[in-house]
Amino acid sequence: MGFRYLKLADEFVERIEQGGLKAGEKLPSLRDLHARTGLSLATVYNAYMELEKRGMVEARHKSGFYVKPFMEDILPLPKMKRVAAKPQKVSMNALVEFILESVGDPDMLPLGTAVAAPELLPIKALAGAIRAVSSKYIRSRELSYGPPAGFGPLRRTIAKRAIGFQQPVNAEEILVTAGCMDAIQLCLRAVSRPGDTVLVESPTFVCYLQLIEDLNMYALELPADAKTGIDLPSVRKAVEQNRISACILNANFQNPLGFEMPTEAKQELVALMARKNIPIIEDDIYGDLYFGAARPKTMKSFDQKGLVLYCSSFSKTLAPDLRVGWTLPGRFLPQVKRLKINTSMTTSKLNQMIVAEFLKEGAYDRHLRKLRSAVKNQVADTARAVARYFPEQTKISAPKGGFVLWVELDKGVDGMKVFELAKANKIFITPGVMCSGTGKYRNCIRLSCGHPWNEKMEAGIRILGEIIKEQTKG
Amino acid sequence: MGFRYLKLADEFVERIEQGGLKAGEKLPSLRDLHARTGLSLATVYNAYMELEKRGMVEARHKSGFYVKPFMEDILPLPKMKRVAAKPQKVSMNALVEFILESVGDPDMLPLGTAVAAPELLPIKALAGAIRAVSSKYIRSRELSYGPPAGFGPLRRTIAKRAIGFQQPVNAEEILVTAGCMDAIQLCLRAVSRPGDTVLVESPTFVCYLQLIEDLNMYALELPADAKTGIDLPSVRKAVEQNRISACILNANFQNPLGFEMPTEAKQELVALMARKNIPIIEDDIYGDLYFGAARPKTMKSFDQKGLVLYCSSFSKTLAPDLRVGWTLPGRFLPQVKRLKINTSMTTSKLNQMIVAEFLKEGAYDRHLRKLRSAVKNQVADTARAVARYFPEQTKISAPKGGFVLWVELDKGVDGMKVFELAKANKIFITPGVMCSGTGKYRNCIRLSCGHPWNEKMEAGIRILGEIIKEQTKG
Repeated sequence: MGFRYLKLADEFVERIEQGGLKAGEKLPSLRDLHARTGLSLATVYNAYMELEKRGMVEARHKSGFYVKPFMEDILPLPKMKRVAAKPQKVSMNALVEFILESVGDPDMLPLGTAVAAPELLPIKALAGAIRAVSSKYIRSRELSYGPPAGFGPLRRTIAKRAIGFQQPVNAEEILVTAGCMDAIQLCLRAVSRPGDTVLVESPTFVCYLQLIEDLNMYALELPADAKTGIDLPSVRKAVEQNRISACILNANFQNPLGFEMPTEAKQELVALMARKNIPIIEDDIYGDLYFGAARPKTMKSFDQKGLVLYCSSFSKTLAPDLRVGWTLPGRFLPQVKRLKINTSMTTSKLNQMIVAEFLKEGAYDRHLRKLRSAVKNQVADTARAVARYFPEQTKISAPKGGFVLWVELDKGVDGMKVFELAKANKIFITPGVMCSGTGKYRNCIRLSCGHPWNEKMEAGIRILGEIIKEQTKG
Repeated sequence: MGFRYLKLADEFVERIEQGGLKAGEKLPSLRDLHARTGLSLATVYNAYMELEKRGMVEARHKSGFYVKPFMEDILPLPKMKRVAAKPQKVSMNALVEFILESVGDPDMLPLGTAVAAPELLPIKALAGAIRAVSSKYIRSRELSYGPPAGFGPLRRTIAKRAIGFQQPVNAEEILVTAGCMDAIQLCLRAVSRPGDTVLVESPTFVCYLQLIEDLNMYALELPADAKTGIDLPSVRKAVEQNRISACILNANFQNPLGFEMPTEAKQELVALMARKNIPIIEDDIYGDLYFGAARPKTMKSFDQKGLVLYCSSFSKTLAPDLRVGWTLPGRFLPQVKRLKINTSMTTSKLNQMIVAEFLKEGAYDRHLRKLRSAVKNQVADTARAVARYFPEQTKISAPKGGFVLWVELDKGVDGMKVFELAKANKIFITPGVMCSGTGKYRNCIRLSCGHPWNEKMEAGIRILGEIIKEQTKG
């Protein structure tokens, strides 16, 4: 009985996603559907509430439920450009530091950092977990160094949670790290050496580029499509023409484009790299933040040779500050573990215990459902505001998950200038140039949608629009 | 009034340390001293209790107070050998992993890891700090990424605590890290590149050697004396003959030799490196665990060019698991900060807040006094047991602080074999070969004295002695 409404909701989701019900269309009335299906009024009502929670429909006062407009219809997508790629020395970007330092600044409108607002995090439940864990931690004298691979119960929980979107995982294959970047740097150091070339998507996440430079490696940036991800023809060509030692890729809800690679593309990419024996470092930190009906598969789930080093963390969904991430480094586990010991010894057991405690009650899944729905709506609200206030020629990504929108402005507009002017107006965005080491994306900006939509946000996007219009004229 | 007894105690400490009162000598009786000095009986009594607490004297039943024998008299010191040094590729050591994984094993006699027993840590006060911080943490919604440089109040406290043994420090010069190894790896990466040569003491800490190998650098191991530290003539020669890009050195209570470099030697070393523009990464993690009357100065305190990158942590004195360390990287601050962002973004604020909370009440200094006295006695007890049970030709270090004893066995004894046989007997030690990348120190072992002395320890050292005697015959 309890699941009938979910089944009904899922049917609607499917119809909406397949275009059978379009944005703005009215759903059948409750009585109507009740009569048509023979389901109880309560079931029908719960199904509509579920759809609303998932951000698929909206209730209009005294009028009924309507399919909520989402992304595709708002503005055109930015177009990927296939350009000849060559390995590049990446240049440092002092902006990263400024941006991280400003995360907590309450005076800035937080459109800069891809992180959930504290009010979207399960603060009360986390407080309970911290309380529960503190006394256990002290009682059982856990103050000494923990095992380098991580706290056993947490590793087992992570293994269990992988069921469904990942191939079967043993807790022993998991290495806990201090967040996802820590996992990525350890994995990259395990598979590559100074002077090596590392394949990344373009645009990509600035910290990968800086990491590659820090390790005296070269980045090969290959074009990615806002809808389907890294361009497979370009990848095929690149692996023939270059000695590539590793890739760092987001297949799910890439930062900054928000794409979800189609399952077949993931499969093909993994097979291609397997043939060439090239390890893939898969950053799946946004994987749980899907806007669709189900969690997408990972590249790791198609990995047959242990060549995919999967990385993720609880920073985007639970508590950035706890610095608890993990990796499934496949056949490179011994190397990654060794590097971990020689860089940070172990990860705080206290923090791992807090996460494990929170995870064990099913509270995490409830929280994720709420968070996904909130973020999806925030992304859509931001995109709609961009459509209202930005110049007409603006293009925008249509993310399938995650926190960020990628906005392509008129060719003449300098995103760095927009960033500076926005900052002066207490609005915090990310300039597109940060997402490449080659000076591309000067006319792009990235907007983060981790914070609840409100009038202040609306006003911020409006001011941003004015700044950009001013720049477009100039 | 309250400080008279401390003044009196300090006078005794000075006389003992300068040899005016020798090990085993009886102190004047309380009445005698009271009569001689005109100080109250209570003051005299408190002074003696203070000396006992500091591990300088022991009360013998109905007989009075005696100067406690410490290290120098127990067994001869191992002799440093000056050998031609050349930069070496360091080879990996799987033992490290085994050793870290066994830290928490309650069945093993813990003579392997240089860490304080949980019962020596201020568990109750830490529990209080965790409780106090948890609610603050949740209330002020500190769950998001903290500033990459670290939690402000903690940095300010660390700066304040540096007064006395360090030159004046600004909180802005401090970067918080996930423990001391994290600080060291960031600093080494900031000043050196793949292919570079890094100068270390010999013997040294295994994780430095593994880190150097991980970063595709070379280690130049220079001989260190068990009493005075790295051999300055060897250093002078080495900097002339090699292009050295950095040093990683312990000046205070080196792991494994336990020496304290004389102040002038520190000064000379810093000046020498400054002339050559070679950065010194100073690991001062044991600096607060001095057995003498005062905290020794650091090399950093003689740094005039910003070339000393000072590293330390709370892992050896407060709570290893919290993973809170820090560095004062001098002129390399921007580079170190950047590397930190690209490897782990930030350090958990929760853990930093716990440490800051604990530090603010003066509880840390009270705890340190107790800990120092406990560790000093444990080291002396272990050394005395070694003298009782090990073969006659055994040599032993006389640490001035820290947790470890370095034991040199007969030339024919294989420390790895001793390690294996000890392990089979549920005794956990560190083989000397781990402290060099060159196969030196096969006939050495390291004993950690972080745990309270008891009959089980005594029995363990006795069994170890039997194992070694058996090996000596063979």
